Formats: sequence, structure tokens, C-alpha cells
Amino acid sequence: MTDMPHSLATAEPVDNLTVMGGGLVGCLLALYLTRHGHAVELFERRPDIRGNGPVEGRSINLALSDRGWRALEGVGIAEAVREVAIPMHGRVMHDVQGNLTYQPYGQAGQSIYSVSRAGLNRRMLDLVEQEPTITLHFNQQCRRVDTRRQELEVLDTETQQARVVPYRRLFGVDGAYSAVRSALQRTDRFNYSQEYLNYGYKELTIEAAPGGQWAIEKHALHIWPRGQYMMIALPNLDGSFNCTLFFPYEGPESFAALQTPEQVTAFFDRVFPDALPLMPQLATEFFDNPTASLVTIRCFPWTLQDQVLLLGDAAHAIVPFYGQGMNAGFEDCTVLNELLHRFGPDWARVFQEFESQRKPNTDAMADLAVYNFREMRDRVADPRFLLQKKIESKLSAQYPDKWLPLYSQVTFSNLPYAEAWANGQAQEEIMQRLMPHIQTEEDYQRPEVQQLVAAEMARRP
Amino acid sequence: MTDMPHSLATAEPVDNLTVMGGGLVGCLLALYLTRHGHAVELFERRPDIRGNGPVEGRSINLALSDRGWRALEGVGIAEAVREVAIPMHGRVMHDVQGNLTYQPYGQAGQSIYSVSRAGLNRRMLDLVEQEPTITLHFNQQCRRVDTRRQELEVLDTETQQARVVPYRRLFGVDGAYSAVRSALQRTDRFNYSQEYLNYGYKELTIEAAPGGQWAIEKHALHIWPRGQYMMIALPNLDGSFNCTLFFPYEGPESFAALQTPEQVTAFFDRVFPDALPLMPQLATEFFDNPTASLVTIRCFPWTLQDQVLLLGDAAHAIVPFYGQGMNAGFEDCTVLNELLHRFGPDWARVFQEFESQRKPNTDAMADLAVYNFREMRDRVADPRFLLQKKIESKLSAQYPDKWLPLYSQVTFSNLPYAEAWANGQAQEEIMQRLMPHIQTEEDYQRPEVQQLVAAEMARRP
Repeated sequence: MTDMPHSLATAEPVDNLTVMGGGLVGCLLALYLTRHGHAVELFERRPDIRGNGPVEGRSINLALSDRGWRALEGVGIAEAVREVAIPMHGRVMHDVQGNLTYQPYGQAGQSIYSVSRAGLNRRMLDLVEQEPTITLHFNQQCRRVDTRRQELEVLDTETQQARVVPYRRLFGVDGAYSAVRSALQRTDRFNYSQEYLNYGYKELTIEAAPGGQWAIEKHALHIWPRGQYMMIALPNLDGSFNCTLFFPYEGPESFAALQTPEQVTAFFDRVFPDALPLMPQLATEFFDNPTASLVTIRCFPWTLQDQVLLLGDAAHAIVPFYGQGMNAGFEDCTVLNELLHRFGPDWARVFQEFESQRKPNTDAMADLAVYNFREMRDRVADPRFLLQKKIESKLSAQYPDKWLPLYSQVTFSNLPYAEAWANGQAQEEIMQRLMPHIQTEEDYQRPEVQQLVAAEMARRP
Repeated sequence: MTDMPHSLATAEPVDNLTVMGGGLVGCLLALYLTRHGHAVELFERRPDIRGNGPVEGRSINLALSDRGWRALEGVGIAEAVREVAIPMHGRVMHDVQGNLTYQPYGQAGQSIYSVSRAGLNRRMLDLVEQEPTITLHFNQQCRRVDTRRQELEVLDTETQQARVVPYRRLFGVDGAYSAVRSALQRTDRFNYSQEYLNYGYKELTIEAAPGGQWAIEKHALHIWPRGQYMMIALPNLDGSFNCTLFFPYEGPESFAALQTPEQVTAFFDRVFPDALPLMPQLATEFFDNPTASLVTIRCFPWTLQDQVLLLGDAAHAIVPFYGQGMNAGFEDCTVLNELLHRFGPDWARVFQEFESQRKPNTDAMADLAVYNFREMRDRVADPRFLLQKKIESKLSAQYPDKWLPLYSQVTFSNLPYAEAWANGQAQEEIMQRLMPHIQTEEDYQRPEVQQLVAAEMARRP
């Protein structure tokens, strides 16, 4: 055992590793593992998405933020991704009259980035394929994991042939409905929960303006917050926006209540009047595109001895409202990479450290994601809340060493999620004490307010 | 739809119902359903336990309390059970020196009852078999539930023949590892969690004294609380006690740390010195009997339209520390019976009302059970806590309309569990305010304490 970095990229592979899942996190993981000199066999259930087959109904756009970029930088692929990413500097809120309010995400120069899930996955598959020590298999459905014999049963979905694949170390990166996790669930004392929101989501499109221009502000994430539901939109390179409607399954305003194209159009005309004219395919898309559910999955342990490790959504699927699902999965790779540098191929120790370091942070991220749903659909429409955000921004500018807004801690830092969440809750309590004394932005400068602020800041470490 | 009671026991069966699981709750449910005039087909995985086969390793003794008795009374079988039940009037705590402390469970005449699980199940199977409208099948393992086709696949474990059994309405009463629930888990938006304690339990025996007498107080539940672990004992009719050791899986004092008969005996001699001489089979039993895990299972919904309903452990398995697992399952039957009286065979409504009424209460019971684990293993060894219990008992005697101790609300009332838990938490807060003013039992009568108590009581409804 040594604390010295383990030597990288030796001539001969150190270990033979099996990665189940060739999505975003699976590809990135394979790249990291191979950088440590290991040989990787990578299995993916779907066909090669770089072909012309249809892509399954996952969210089309993702928001890359600092944790994601850091992980991409670690294998030297950040620059290539940055070329196809659109920076979003803040939120644009659309009210029912079509009035806009803008709220920057962070300080000047800080942005999150809209990227295409499929485009990013294709790019990463290209990089994976260039690695001589990674073997990539598509159309391989994992049917069963026998953890006692350390064997996978995989079905080739093209030939319908099943075969048994032995493994020594298995990385389950096969998503929220992970087959690898299912095998761990059958071991004793496996804690597991799946919790659904009473909301579903549906992908819709705002079309490009003539000449491939963006019909609404390109460099922003757009939100139509409506209390019990909301729509958001992220920009694409071709001028269109990918919209997502987050909407209750049941109730007076819900998927169940909208059964005809006329009902859908009338509803959008009433609640999203400025968006409707930009969505000519609305009535078709609304009924053609699936309604997807929103689940939080937690489990523990993530390991089986030194043999199996879960990462990404397989270990901690979260709802999408903080834009951190992919970023958290990518950060898993960063953390694993650091542990491999520290401990080398002492897999038992690496796996143990990984789950004990990472579990409290992804639990906190799961809570943050549900919390941000309430904020996005409901609170961002409240003038008092927007005022509070402005005051917080002044406070952060005045006391930069004492105060980083929660959103920035999550999005523009690498602070462990659990610390960010604890800080954010403490900061919210302070804001609740200050805001009764503040009615306008200018009030922040009043001496009595400044005195209160100074007293609060003096109590902070 | 009518609010009038539905007429009972008509000549012809109203509906054909399928009950999966012939344990305690399954048998009681079948008896209730048949009282409403329905025909019931009851499937049980195990052989008929009234034969001579071995009984699986579930807890051997159970504590019946008011909710359980009420449910048994509803089908007229309480008296028969009472004959083989041993009343336990309170807890006897054994300290490390073997000193005893006694704490009554409730008012005079209030007791919980030690009953044998197998004996009770046998008695209930006898009653089930006497019902002409119940058909009872043993050795029937449910392998698959097809909720779309409404079919079960059952394997006869004697003949190894599988067959398909159609159902119209299916009651899943097949325990914590329910096969029926597994089928619901595969439907969309099914919330589910299984959460294990880091503790296991092991059944052990205190032998009868010569002449079939009880070597320690017969009419009590015995506890050896030791902070991070504990042992309990419940009396049997033959003079023996069934002991359960609740013990960490890992750590310096744990199952993992006791690997030889010598280690077990030395450990018991050190921490349970008064029990050891009464346990001559200890070293054998410790290694022959399984270490069982402790899980809380929550899920929702409990229904699939008007076709499937989960009850008992299949819907809400809890840890055993409040002695309410069986009682909660039996109370499910009481609640369902009331709904069948109100709504007749309007199954969609009955199922809906059942899950919406019952779910918050079994969630509260799950929390109470974990809470009581801490109280039993840790707090009951604390003199301040025992003083608090005595003061609370005086308070309850002085203000009987305003104060019923939490334990009594759970154990000696039919108050919904969620109300009991909320009341209990409010009462604990009051005790936390009073106790700093109280150092001895006599302090309760001091005028300033009486004044504080009166002020607290005046604020209660």
C-alpha cells in the first residue's frame, strides 16, 4: 500500500475490467480506466447510436457544468465538447403575459452549457473506439448477473444468441434501471429505494427562426414557471430549442386532462402564450412523444467486495431539476480516478473508499434536485424570491469569502454536494432573517440592514 | 353506492377472490372475506405447518396487543387464542450486575400477550379449513404474477409441477419478500424502499426450571439493554423463554466478533451474567440458529386498479421493536372489514380507501418501530429515562383526558398510528421542558412543578 500515485499506462494491461453500459458515464469511465493501464470490455444494450437507428426517448439536451467539465478535462476531451456546447449565462423567466425576467446564474463569465446527449455520446464512443485496450460490444443486453460465479448472461439483440461472459471486476454503469444493481438487490441487506414524483415530462420543440436563428435568447435557459408545473427550453446549435414540459400526471391541469390536440393548443395558448406560436409541431409532438416518469433511486452498498461497483444513475438516479444527473455521474469518474491514483489497483480499498466518500454527496444531490424543482416551477415566479436572489447576489459580492450562493456551489464549484447542501440551508436561514427588513433592492444599502448583514457575517467561519 | 352495511353471508358467494399467503394475516384475511359472503382460494408456499415438517426460521414468539385482539374478536376467535397466550404486564430490565428494574406497560389490567407464532398459525389454519367457501392449497410457490392477463404461475413444490391460475381479484399477503408486490414493482411509478438495520437477530432459549416452572418472572417481557445491543425474552407455556439477541453485524461487539463457542460464552458471561446459567444450549444454538436481518419495507401504491391489493408485511414490513408487526397486519383486516361493510363489493373504492387510510398509519408505525429500538436497547438503561417514564405515568394519572403515554396509544388503543406518533412527539417535547425541573419522583408534587404541568396541560386540546 502506498500513497504515491500509481504509475499510469504501463505497457501491459494491469487488470481486465468489465464495464456494463456505454452511455455517457460508461464511456467516460472506460476512458479513465484505460488511462490507468487496464484493459476494458465495454457492453452496451443499444445499437451503435452513431448509425442511423432511432435514439431512445431520453432527454435530448443536457446542461454541462463545472463538475462535468472537470471530468472531461481529466481525459483531455473537454475542448472537443466545448465546440458543440452553447453557453447559457442565466435563466430567462417567461410570465403568463409573455413578460421576461432575467437572472444570471453566477458571476460574469460563469455559464452552464447546453449539449446534445446523443451528440456527446457519439463523440465519446469515437474516443472509446480509438483506445486499443477498450473492446466495445453493442446490442448486448445484460439478462442476468451471477455474482457467485462472476458471470454475466448477455443476449445479442441482433442474433438473439445468449452467451455467458465471465468477469473479474464489473462496473455497473447501466443507468437508472440497472441490471447489475438488480443482482446486488438479491444479496442480503441491500438498501434500496425508488421514489417517483407525481409529475411526468414530455419533450417538445421550439423551432428555429428563419435562417437558422434563435427565436428567443440563445444564451439562456428559458423557464415558464406556473406554480404546479413548468416548461423549460435549452438552445440547440441549429436554432431550435428543446423544450421539456414538467406536468402532473393527474388533476385539473395535467397530462390526463389534455386528451385532444384542441385541448393542448388551448392550454398552451392560455398558459404559455409567447411559446405557442414558436411551436408549430406542438399538437403532433404532444401525442407522439412519450410521457416519461421522474424517479429518484438510492441504494447501498454500491459494491460487492472487490468485484462489483455501481456508478452513475445505476447507483444514484436523480430528478433533472438541478441539471446535475450527468455532472454527478461524470464526477463519479473524477473521484474514482483520484482513488486509483492514490491506491493503484487495490480494488477492495478503491471500491470501499469510493462508496463511503461518494454516497453522502449523491444523497445530498438527490435532495437538492427535488428542492430545485419547487424553486424552478414555483418560487422563481415570486417577486419576493427574485428580490431575495438579487440581495443574495449583492451579499455574495460584498463578502466573497463568506458567501457563495447555493446554485454556484453546486454548479460552479467542486465542493462536495453534501457540504454545498448544508451551506445552502444555513444561508437560506440567514436570508429568512434578513428579508423582513428589505423591501427593495436599494434597502440593502440602508445602515440598519448593513449592520444586520455584518452581524450575520461575523458569526460565519 | 350506499353507506349502509352490505348484507353479510348471503347464500351464494358474491365474488371469487384469490389470497396469496397463508400466514397469520393471510388466514385472518380469508376468514374476514368469507364472512362477507365471498369464495376464497388461498395459496401458501410452505407445507401445512400442522404436519411434522420443520418450521422456517421466523421469530418464534409474538406479542399480541389491543389492535391484534380486536381483529381476532371480529371473526370470533379471540377467546380460543387467549387460552394459549401469556399476559406480560410490564418490562423487566436486567442490568450487567443482574439487578432488575420493573416498568409496567400500562394501567393495572393492561398487558401484552406472548403467543407462539406457529401455534397461532396452526389454530387459524384449523379455522380456515372449517370454512366451506375457502379452498386451501399448500406447497404452492408463486413464481410470477402477470397483472395484464391476471394470471398467477404457481409451482407445486412437492410435485414440481407448475400451473397457471387465473384470478379476478388478488390479495397479496405473502410477506416481506412478497411475490405479488414484485409484480407491482414492475409497473410504472411504483414507489418502493427496503432499508436494513446494521443489526441482525438470533433466537436463543432460556430453559424451563425443574417442574416446567419459569426461571425468571413469567408475566413480563425481559430486556437486557446494553446501549448498542440488547437481548429480550418472552415466556412460553412450557416454562421456557424465547430469547432474541439484537446485535450489530460488524464491530468490536458483534456477530462477526463471536466466532467460537468459547467467545460466545465469555461474552454472555460478561454482559448477560444472570441469563447465561439459564441458557445451557447457548453455544450450540448460537451457531446452529440463523442470523436474520431486520428490514423496513415501504411501497406505494398498494393496489392495481380493482384487481390487486397488498396487505400485511407485503405492504409494510417493519422492524419488530414495538411488537406491532402482526398487530398492524391484523389491523389491516379490521380496516378492510369496515370498508367492506361500508361499500360492499365496490372493490375499486374499497381498495382506494384502504390504501389512502392505511398508508400514513403504517408509515408512522415503521418510524415508531425504529424509534423504539433505540429506546429499548439504550434509553431504558438510563435512570433519568426511567424517572421520566414514572413522571409521565403520574402525569397521565392526574390528567387522564389530556395524556395517554405513547406506548399505551400504540399498544392499548386503536388510535390511528399516525395520530399516536404525532401525539407522542408532542408529549416528548413537553417532557423535555419539564424534566430539568425534576430530580426525584417526589419532585412531581412540588408546587412549582405542578404549576408548570398545569400550564402545559392548559395548552393541550
